[in-house]
Amino acid sequence: MVGGGPTSLIGPVHRAAVGIDGEIEVVCGAFSIYPEESRQMGEMLSLDRDRVYDNYEQMFEREKDLPADQRMDFVSVVTPNHVHFAPAKMALENGFHVIVEKPIAFSLEEAKQLQKLVQKTGLLLGLTHTYTGYPLVKHARHMVAKGEIGKVRKVYVEYPQGWLSTLLEGTGNAQAKWRTDPKQSGMGGAIGDIGTHAANLAEYITGQKITDICAMLNAVVKGRKIDDDTSMLLRFENGASGVLIATQVAAGEENNLNIRVYGEKGGLQWQQHDPNTLIVRWLDRPMEVLRAGQPYLSDAAKAFTRTPAGHPEGYLEAFANIYRGFARAVRDYKPGKKMNLAKYDVPTVEDGVRGMNRVKTAVKSSTSTRKWTALK
Amino acid sequence: MVGGGPTSLIGPVHRAAVGIDGEIEVVCGAFSIYPEESRQMGEMLSLDRDRVYDNYEQMFEREKDLPADQRMDFVSVVTPNHVHFAPAKMALENGFHVIVEKPIAFSLEEAKQLQKLVQKTGLLLGLTHTYTGYPLVKHARHMVAKGEIGKVRKVYVEYPQGWLSTLLEGTGNAQAKWRTDPKQSGMGGAIGDIGTHAANLAEYITGQKITDICAMLNAVVKGRKIDDDTSMLLRFENGASGVLIATQVAAGEENNLNIRVYGEKGGLQWQQHDPNTLIVRWLDRPMEVLRAGQPYLSDAAKAFTRTPAGHPEGYLEAFANIYRGFARAVRDYKPGKKMNLAKYDVPTVEDGVRGMNRVKTAVKSSTSTRKWTALK
Amino acid sequence: MVGGGPTSLIGPVHRAAVGIDGEIEVVCGAFSIYPEESRQMGEMLSLDRDRVYDNYEQMFEREKDLPADQRMDFVSVVTPNHVHFAPAKMALENGFHVIVEKPIAFSLEEAKQLQKLVQKTGLLLGLTHTYTGYPLVKHARHMVAKGEIGKVRKVYVEYPQGWLSTLLEGTGNAQAKWRTDPKQSGMGGAIGDIGTHAANLAEYITGQKITDICAMLNAVVKGRKIDDDTSMLLRFENGASGVLIATQVAAGEENNLNIRVYGEKGGLQWQQHDPNTLIVRWLDRPMEVLRAGQPYLSDAAKAFTRTPAGHPEGYLEAFANIYRGFARAVRDYKPGKKMNLAKYDVPTVEDGVRGMNRVKTAVKSSTSTRKWTALK
Amino acid sequence: MVGGGPTSLIGPVHRAAVGIDGEIEVVCGAFSIYPEESRQMGEMLSLDRDRVYDNYEQMFEREKDLPADQRMDFVSVVTPNHVHFAPAKMALENGFHVIVEKPIAFSLEEAKQLQKLVQKTGLLLGLTHTYTGYPLVKHARHMVAKGEIGKVRKVYVEYPQGWLSTLLEGTGNAQAKWRTDPKQSGMGGAIGDIGTHAANLAEYITGQKITDICAMLNAVVKGRKIDDDTSMLLRFENGASGVLIATQVAAGEENNLNIRVYGEKGGLQWQQHDPNTLIVRWLDRPMEVLRAGQPYLSDAAKAFTRTPAGHPEGYLEAFANIYRGFARAVRDYKPGKKMNLAKYDVPTVEDGVRGMNRVKTAVKSSTSTRKWTALK
Repeated sequence: MVGGGPTSLIGPVHRAAVGIDGEIEVVCGAFSIYPEESRQMGEMLSLDRDRVYDNYEQMFEREKDLPADQRMDFVSVVTPNHVHFAPAKMALENGFHVIVEKPIAFSLEEAKQLQKLVQKTGLLLGLTHTYTGYPLVKHARHMVAKGEIGKVRKVYVEYPQGWLSTLLEGTGNAQAKWRTDPKQSGMGGAIGDIGTHAANLAEYITGQKITDICAMLNAVVKGRKIDDDTSMLLRFENGASGVLIATQVAAGEENNLNIRVYGEKGGLQWQQHDPNTLIVRWLDRPMEVLRAGQPYLSDAAKAFTRTPAGHPEGYLEAFANIYRGFARAVRDYKPGKKMNLAKYDVPTVEDGVRGMNRVKTAVKSSTSTRKWTALK
Repeated sequence: MVGGGPTSLIGPVHRAAVGIDGEIEVVCGAFSIYPEESRQMGEMLSLDRDRVYDNYEQMFEREKDLPADQRMDFVSVVTPNHVHFAPAKMALENGFHVIVEKPIAFSLEEAKQLQKLVQKTGLLLGLTHTYTGYPLVKHARHMVAKGEIGKVRKVYVEYPQGWLSTLLEGTGNAQAKWRTDPKQSGMGGAIGDIGTHAANLAEYITGQKITDICAMLNAVVKGRKIDDDTSMLLRFENGASGVLIATQVAAGEENNLNIRVYGEKGGLQWQQHDPNTLIVRWLDRPMEVLRAGQPYLSDAAKAFTRTPAGHPEGYLEAFANIYRGFARAVRDYKPGKKMNLAKYDVPTVEDGVRGMNRVKTAVKSSTSTRKWTALK
Repeated sequence: MVGGGPTSLIGPVHRAAVGIDGEIEVVCGAFSIYPEESRQMGEMLSLDRDRVYDNYEQMFEREKDLPADQRMDFVSVVTPNHVHFAPAKMALENGFHVIVEKPIAFSLEEAKQLQKLVQKTGLLLGLTHTYTGYPLVKHARHMVAKGEIGKVRKVYVEYPQGWLSTLLEGTGNAQAKWRTDPKQSGMGGAIGDIGTHAANLAEYITGQKITDICAMLNAVVKGRKIDDDTSMLLRFENGASGVLIATQVAAGEENNLNIRVYGEKGGLQWQQHDPNTLIVRWLDRPMEVLRAGQPYLSDAAKAFTRTPAGHPEGYLEAFANIYRGFARAVRDYKPGKKMNLAKYDVPTVEDGVRGMNRVKTAVKSSTSTRKWTALK
Repeated sequence: MVGGGPTSLIGPVHRAAVGIDGEIEVVCGAFSIYPEESRQMGEMLSLDRDRVYDNYEQMFEREKDLPADQRMDFVSVVTPNHVHFAPAKMALENGFHVIVEKPIAFSLEEAKQLQKLVQKTGLLLGLTHTYTGYPLVKHARHMVAKGEIGKVRKVYVEYPQGWLSTLLEGTGNAQAKWRTDPKQSGMGGAIGDIGTHAANLAEYITGQKITDICAMLNAVVKGRKIDDDTSMLLRFENGASGVLIATQVAAGEENNLNIRVYGEKGGLQWQQHDPNTLIVRWLDRPMEVLRAGQPYLSDAAKAFTRTPAGHPEGYLEAFANIYRGFARAVRDYKPGKKMNLAKYDVPTVEDGVRGMNRVKTAVKSSTSTRKWTALK
């Protein structure tokens, strides 16, 4: 693991997710840019001292030299945004599979470099777009793919948060600080932090790519250096259209990720705050409420719950689903043989490139006076 | 009453709304373009035969000649969109107050003519933008005005319906037919039918006018002659921004009018499907759920419920609130004295002009390649 | 109308309900025990002065003597509980149909006297058990009757209120005062005021009579003279069992009437706070959410909405449904011909007798050390 | 671990819960009564072969002889109900702490034996009453303890399931089979399986013991040998009263555990299907909706979430909270020093004894003709 030291928010989430299925074990790490903190973390995790490293360069160096049955199987990168690219690149260059916290890199160019490296090495690169790990998101995708709601016409996806409603970065809040600092976060604020999750979810469920966007990005809070609020009109490749909302100034909202997809025959709605429920509206019969763990769900959904219906599962379990898929791909991996990570239902480097492109295009559209900007 | 004959959808709604408070009585009418149907309706309503007219021209002619204490106090126009203007105009020209079903007219020009007539005659013209009649909508407006959620920053308003998901107008459905026929409905389909309700609600609650829009209008269903789907980005006069969605092809949706307004300190949410509830989110304390009829509400809200908390009130009661306000204004009216109908919390001719302008501007924006179009 | 003067809570509700359909008109009344208040009310309602009476005795006396086409068609009794019996009795004795606010009388004995009078005169006596007027309650009954959920096994019905959580009757609150005074309210407090609504709803939907009860009645608030809280175990004639909760000390609750009925194949849930929705759970397929006004509903339900799906209707509309049914029965009435008021879906004198018996039996059970008490 | 082999339902749940925090590691086990299956499980968990045992007797025998820093720290018993007692007893007799899946034993007598052993040895015995592990359940308890809702008056707790609506045990379903077989499950069916969870939750949140019950137990499905449905009236030590519902024939219900507690000033509601939300109703101000992870919660609740507000946590996380508390107690344990496990917020042997007593008393009450039976 690279990153995830004592002050990390997302590090423990990755480790908890990994622990749920017991298929993955943290064996080594460079947890912090401060070696002392890295060692501290290693102790908390009861790791072998020899495998707690001062920095990730050292980690790759030494792990590479360990016998194949002793060295780590893959590396997990959970650092802030601007430190995703370098360790991911180094992992691939040193022969390690890698799973990267979203976004894949700091810029579209970096993302493309990683893509080339993946193509060249044949190694696996996974991305933790967590929300696609929820079982009912998978069922929604299944229903659309089977044509159950007919051709998709409208997509409304939104991710309202409220935690940046004040100039939190001015108060010493570490999370707010790096997320609103273009040097650490990248060119996009809300659009990169949460908007990209929303867009990814929309494309995942509908199976349709966004082709054109018309974006309005705002820095609503005075003194903020980056957008904290995004709205955009969307066009999809199949002719569908939609709206994406991603804001961090919707005072009082938590992570109210919500997607609605309407087709010719019906509509689907999924909300992260009630993740074990999928609402299905029909043109000519009563609305249905589908629930995780129920026998009537698709195999696509049933494979991703761990308890019978009625036992709520949540964010960590969705996260674990991504990791479990990646672990299985790593286990199946054979050097020299081309593997399709998407078959394991794990977000790939292509999703990462696409994500970076979305952010770049949104920023471009936002400053344009033209209505539509193509998302190539 | 003009219109509201045996096949009318909205006519009985107006009459039921009027009946709730017992302050208004239907005394005469020209209910249909077919005199026979008008008479039939008159009988159903036990009206005096002499006061059931063959057409509205006749009605104005004869009512005008009745003694002041016998003739109708005001006229209610509930015909299809393209027949709002003429009877409303004739009412004003003949000295009658008039309440018009939304939209006020067929075009912006007609609306402006009515506005001038109102200014000239000093008579009252009310508009049934029903949704502003709900008590918790009024409370939401009150909270914003009092600054309880701070300066408004974001407005998300949506009105999804699904009933036009198929080419219903091709099946003989009368409601679908006139609403999708530009000759009867006007230049806007969804934008005029429901989008204007959404926009009006947003302006009503926030007290802020929309200044610029970026609209996408679609005719999603093949063969349809008019938009059945609208999305637009919004800018408000105080610097707030937002999104408006109004669609009639969200399969499975009823009248899911939903508005969220976020300010610096908190956010409000109101949904027509649960109209007796107002959700208030706060930046730093638990979400609150306000309920109609409760003593803690503002007088603005309390004056508009008829039963104690816990007795659901709905659409007809909201409608009745508009009518009751109008009736009271009519009662207070003194010829020659300028009256402000807005003080009675009844939508006015200005709202009607504004509504027509919104439709026109939305259509203009939709066909423009420029991002923003001003709404003057 | 008897009762419903200037300070009445339920009087305006009856009048608003009556106004919605325009099939009934208030033509006369004895609105208060104070003739002055009665007259005041008559003026507010623009009634003919001659037909505003000083007391109900006078009203029956004089109305009886009017020509058949001028006198009132039926009388509505909306006085406090202890003044239901006398005017209802007098109405029947003087040849008038009567609709009585629930409970039908002050004691079981009085109720039985009315029952005999109805049998003897053949006149119509209706009871405003409002909750059975909701369209989705009617659909629930229809589904049970059609066997859609299989044989009924479990019934959970509850009516929690919180308004009597303090000794409100000690503060001069008029509603609290008479409802907690055994001399005005009768022997049952919560059980009579709301518990009987809950029980009636359970029997109405399931079509099964309660045969045995095991009741716990409490006067929770210190100083209260009557029960403000009821819980009981139930047995039904078909072998089903259940629980009834009716409390007025559930602090913070409004009128959260909620019923769940489970059969062999599925379960139904209806809640007054969301009255336009019926939840249907199935053993082997997704939960369905049925909505008022939808074409897929039974005729039993469709006949009782006034607006298309998506326009919320509420308590007044449910009330209006009872009145409309009664008005139609009155219209169809032919002297000398036996009529079945239940066919008009209006609660009858039999429901009234049953209600009084339930209260009496609950009080008896509550003071007994035996578990079960039969409800004959 | 004792039990939790390849066909176990609850075994993987325990292991996933344990994995979330990474503070506990499964090091050995006797996973099945079939040594082959036990070995198979050991391999799946990558355990050292030497520490996968043929049966639990062997496990205790051998683990006991390992050096203190190598042997297991405690044992987890996850077998069917009738095999809880023997391994738990043997654990304590051999000097091991033990955590037992609910119910603690097969009979009240066995439970009391374990209680004596715990008192004698000073070892720790924990019980996985999972529902008390939810953070908002802990906050609810905190609010009651602080007097925020005033003295508790009413408690409504229910646990409806629908999965035993048919004679599932006749179809070969293993879960249904042992749970409806008195020889494996004990004298109580629904009352023991889920009713005891509901009662435990009520006592946990209110801090009040149930003193008297009036129970109705039914075997609703023909051919069933044990109750599948329970309803009971309750009295609490502080004078509060309530109702408990636990049924397995509410067709279509999952694990709809729901508790409402009303005090003099307000009421609390928590539902397992939306576990990250606590509804608080107030007598004189708007209802509040509290959410897991929010800063405004008590420390009691905040200590038990792993992610910021807006990231749903569920059943496994609640389970993990029980285990984490137990692990910390084990770590703090010093032989010879009396420890209070309840301080770690872990259900204890006393809760287990109480649970067995509740089942026994409920069965006794159900067959009695007297209304109330004391729960000593």
